[in-house]
Amino acid sequence: MIHTLLKNKKVVLASASPRRKQIFEYIGVKALQYPANIDEPMLELPPYKLVQELALMKASHVATHVDSGCLIVGADTIVYSEKEILGKPDTIGDAIEYLTRLSGHTHSVYTGVAIKHGVHEFTSYAKSSVTFKTLDMHDIEAYIKTKEPFDKAGAYGIQGYGSQFIEKIAGCYFNVMGFPISTFYDMLKDMKKKKLI
Amino acid sequence: MIHTLLKNKKVVLASASPRRKQIFEYIGVKALQYPANIDEPMLELPPYKLVQELALMKASHVATHVDSGCLIVGADTIVYSEKEILGKPDTIGDAIEYLTRLSGHTHSVYTGVAIKHGVHEFTSYAKSSVTFKTLDMHDIEAYIKTKEPFDKAGAYGIQGYGSQFIEKIAGCYFNVMGFPISTFYDMLKDMKKKKLI
Repeated sequence: MIHTLLKNKKVVLASASPRRKQIFEYIGVKALQYPANIDEPMLELPPYKLVQELALMKASHVATHVDSGCLIVGADTIVYSEKEILGKPDTIGDAIEYLTRLSGHTHSVYTGVAIKHGVHEFTSYAKSSVTFKTLDMHDIEAYIKTKEPFDKAGAYGIQGYGSQFIEKIAGCYFNVMGFPISTFYDMLKDMKKKKLI
Repeated sequence: MIHTLLKNKKVVLASASPRRKQIFEYIGVKALQYPANIDEPMLELPPYKLVQELALMKASHVATHVDSGCLIVGADTIVYSEKEILGKPDTIGDAIEYLTRLSGHTHSVYTGVAIKHGVHEFTSYAKSSVTFKTLDMHDIEAYIKTKEPFDKAGAYGIQGYGSQFIEKIAGCYFNVMGFPISTFYDMLKDMKKKKLI
């Protein structure tokens, strides 16, 4: 299990996200949070590559600030709808637009994970499908009033008020929340097999 | 949204489950928890009927103890694998058996929801598929050591250490956690349409 594989490791989560912190708590891993301040360039890459690239940039940024013995974990999540990335909404108008687009449709969520441990680097990713109920303007307005949409890619959080809008998902729930636990476990098992942890 | 539909309602959750309580917090609903002490008879019913029946039994039990103006919510969750219901494991042996059965396979989780409001009763349910990674005995032993399996149907919790064993789900995550938010929202919208809330 993850907490046994990471026993005696100093784990650094290269993210300020409270949701990722919470996920680490679910799996019994005490991690230091060190936010990566990178400009996220909109690289011309397919989503599954983009999220791995950004996750690695975050882990690499943090690596220059912490002890070289640390195991650094970076992650990047995007909401992808009709071949477009939906970022965090800046305005109420953005939030209305994003939620209207997601309403009644299925979109994809990708999270890239990067692990940096000494000279070694690993990346992987998860993709999930999320199907929204059909929302009416009352739903959208009431949701915006909760302020939940504003710090979240795609203008919704799957854990919180947003949960009631989700008809179904296919894939990893924790990916949609911001960190694919199952993918991370596979990466660590692979590192263990190669005797790198 | 759910919290607007339930504004000014006294909501009673007929369950002792801390996970259901947490789900109500996600959606901003303050509910009184009143555990239903019913003997859960193993009725000869298909799973989707059984969970609704048990949810209603719980809500009805609590209805005899609280103010008649309350909106009472009952729920019952079962883990269903190879045409058998997996309950909460009583012993380490049970937990090993259940986790071995789930390992590398897909099973179903059903949650029935019952709402009792005055003379009105409504029930519905959700079904999700959950696919486990292949676990080895190290995984199973380490997981049992966390004690997480013991108060959970099927000997696992999707939120917690167990999360790392879940390859993917199809359907509602919150159903697997113990309460299908999306289904509950549909039920309340329907009641609203009928002017019953």
